[in-house]
Amino acid sequence: MIIARVVGNVVASQKQLSHEGKKILLLQPLDLKDEPMGELVVALDAVDAGVGDRVLAVQEGFSAMTSVGHIESPIDAAVIGVIDLVEIE
Amino acid sequence: MIIARVVGNVVASQKQLSHEGKKILLLQPLDLKDEPMGELVVALDAVDAGVGDRVLAVQEGFSAMTSVGHIESPIDAAVIGVIDLVEIE
Amino acid sequence: MIIARVVGNVVASQKQLSHEGKKILLLQPLDLKDEPMGELVVALDAVDAGVGDRVLAVQEGFSAMTSVGHIESPIDAAVIGVIDLVEIE
Amino acid sequence: MIIARVVGNVVASQKQLSHEGKKILLLQPLDLKDEPMGELVVALDAVDAGVGDRVLAVQEGFSAMTSVGHIESPIDAAVIGVIDLVEIE
Amino acid sequence: MIIARVVGNVVASQKQLSHEGKKILLLQPLDLKDEPMGELVVALDAVDAGVGDRVLAVQEGFSAMTSVGHIESPIDAAVIGVIDLVEIE
Repeated sequence: MIIARVVGNVVASQKQLSHEGKKILLLQPLDLKDEPMGELVVALDAVDAGVGDRVLAVQEGFSAMTSVGHIESPIDAAVIGVIDLVEIE
Repeated sequence: MIIARVVGNVVASQKQLSHEGKKILLLQPLDLKDEPMGELVVALDAVDAGVGDRVLAVQEGFSAMTSVGHIESPIDAAVIGVIDLVEIE
Repeated sequence: MIIARVVGNVVASQKQLSHEGKKILLLQPLDLKDEPMGELVVALDAVDAGVGDRVLAVQEGFSAMTSVGHIESPIDAAVIGVIDLVEIE
Repeated sequence: MIIARVVGNVVASQKQLSHEGKKILLLQPLDLKDEPMGELVVALDAVDAGVGDRVLAVQEGFSAMTSVGHIESPIDAAVIGVIDLVEIE
Repeated sequence: MIIARVVGNVVASQKQLSHEGKKILLLQPLDLKDEPMGELVVALDAVDAGVGDRVLAVQEGFSAMTSVGHIESPIDAAVIGVIDLVEIE
């Protein structure tokens, strides 16, 4: 999984029916100091996250599809949690 | 998922039967300013996209196969949507 | 699989129900001299590992999901063993 | 998928029974000018391709396994088509 | 798949039960001149390979799990063959 911040949305008029009603989010991956790290990721929203949230996202097809119900949703990335705290010991 | 522009086609005479009738597209990944970024991607078309369209594509086998009906279509990338708008906040 | 050391935890209040009661661990990948190598990895804990443990982790969705019981747990990385010894011949 | 040229074979005496009778091919990925690009790929042959052919190959396990019949064939790359033409517009 | 040489073992006392009795191998990927290339890979042994053998390995979860029987073995890499010969034409 990656830690990322939601920074925007993607709107697609012509898409798989299974995506209807779900947000497609733009994510900026973060390092442990909450600084941007690497390129943006496009992911489906499985937990009703919004712009500004720090989230946990998967980047693999089978797990992403499971996060949104699995059947007929051909995605390879999804937001699966909103993060409260990152503890480093 | 990635954001990309359709830039061409691939024609293969000897291929898996399940691909018959489906287009194999050449995609140029884009950054958020719509500038080309990184190397071309070869993907099966699941939404009847055409050259010039800005699209959303998956790059994982299970999700790509699901996008085109799943059975007997051994692909690892597919175009799953035509993009209207990318909003960054 | 990768060899890594557990260095912290991630706490998410809003997440997939299937993750309830399982720890989300921060892992630092190691080289063969036990020195840090590359970026941190976020993984679900399948073997009750703790901070300081040297562990074996998978980084693929289907195997990660299998390690924690598979159904309804949309993850793409998991800790699957605590390492005692690495032998190079 | 990637576009590649078949440049050789791998012979393995001790291997999964499911591979018996199938060729293991060495592929050189190509750029759009048919020039070599990046490192060689080892893939199972699903379409009876030969040395010199320009081919389409998948690089993901589930799709590779599907291309050769799926059951009991633990591969993560396969040649799924012989290319006639690449059109860039 | 990758071509690699077996260079060592990993011993884990606390691990998934499905791994009991199977060796966890350290692999050094090789280029076509049999020179080391890139970082070590940790993989489960599906063909009884030993230190010094030149092997073929998969690096994807679904195929790795299939190579060792599939059920309850959460791995993302496996040795699937011992190589006799690599022919480049």
